Amino acid sequence: MRIPKHIGIIPDGNRRWALSNSLSKDKGYDHGINPGLEVFKLCQKENIQEVTFYGFTIDNTKRPSDQKIAFTKACIDSVMLLTKEDCEILVLGNTESSCFPKELLPFTKRKKFGSGGIKANFLINYGWEWDLNLLKNADISKKHIQPHLQSKDISRIDLIIRWGGRRRLSGLLPVQSVYSDFYILDNYWPDFKKEDFYDALSWYNEQDITLGG
Amino acid sequence: MRIPKHIGIIPDGNRRWALSNSLSKDKGYDHGINPGLEVFKLCQKENIQEVTFYGFTIDNTKRPSDQKIAFTKACIDSVMLLTKEDCEILVLGNTESSCFPKELLPFTKRKKFGSGGIKANFLINYGWEWDLNLLKNADISKKHIQPHLQSKDISRIDLIIRWGGRRRLSGLLPVQSVYSDFYILDNYWPDFKKEDFYDALSWYNEQDITLGG
Repeated sequence: MRIPKHIGIIPDGNRRWALSNSLSKDKGYDHGINPGLEVFKLCQKENIQEVTFYGFTIDNTKRPSDQKIAFTKACIDSVMLLTKEDCEILVLGNTESSCFPKELLPFTKRKKFGSGGIKANFLINYGWEWDLNLLKNADISKKHIQPHLQSKDISRIDLIIRWGGRRRLSGLLPVQSVYSDFYILDNYWPDFKKEDFYDALSWYNEQDITLGG
Repeated sequence: MRIPKHIGIIPDGNRRWALSNSLSKDKGYDHGINPGLEVFKLCQKENIQEVTFYGFTIDNTKRPSDQKIAFTKACIDSVMLLTKEDCEILVLGNTESSCFPKELLPFTKRKKFGSGGIKANFLINYGWEWDLNLLKNADISKKHIQPHLQSKDISRIDLIIRWGGRRRLSGLLPVQSVYSDFYILDNYWPDFKKEDFYDALSWYNEQDITLGG
């Protein structure tokens, strides 16, 4: 089986899950923490080299404050859970804004936990425009784009898995996703099940990879 | 019905269509010309303001020369067909390479035909890295990205329709597609049928639009 090197996770549907379970929208995020740990462990088991979690974006911080508090806390808790595992964590986002949780500042340079191994990236207070804006500092004579991005330490994504049925990137790493295959699941992220992950891997195994060629 | 302002068309599957019809791969592109005109006319009919056709990329030009000749010719013919319609044509791509057909040079600034109206964009010898590289010339103090791209005259895409079953962007306008909804059809582009277009529009009508919020 051909296994992706790098998987991007869009854990969407937390608020819709909450509503469908008679909870207020902000109560959904907490239920998204454990699925993240499960996905991480499955990636580790399948020897995937890198996994990126779409935490929250600069756009998301315009939501009502109870939601903002809830998703920020869920992201912090998710990162902290992974510090108990063998991995190398990177948190990427705009740290110059008060929306970036200071608890995560120590992770803005990649940090090894346990015996290291799989890279685990979290996008926290991330914005695609913020990411690309750094390019304006780069020397035009340099041919490539990636080394000049805010997200330069995150590699090209092979497979993006999105929960919650929407078929869009929502601003996730525009450069790293130019050739990514997208797999969409209709169930909400808090309803994550192991089969979702394996369905995505089986589907990916059947795709041919051309990298634009 | 909520109609997208701007549709992106990824007309994939020409070579697979050719093989499935016992033709050599290069013979498929010719059969993709008429579908393009049909889609254009449907967009016009439904009052869509802008449509972008993914012609060929810089990556594509590394293919065998019979294919390269065939897809270049099909793209030229497709642009020429639209000059007989009411529209405003823009051809965007790297004109500094010999792979850019000189027949299309007159269209690299938007040009009005007939009574104008719908904008029709063709990406010809386009590359996402070529597109973004121009950002390196921009002033860092300017907040936004779009005005500094090679593709600055192409607006944000609401709906991307891809034929041929693959679920990826393949480098199509990374900035304009950050919030786009993707609709994938399994049939090959030369087998385009009107229902494909309307299925995509009906699906789009059911999506909620958050623009990352």
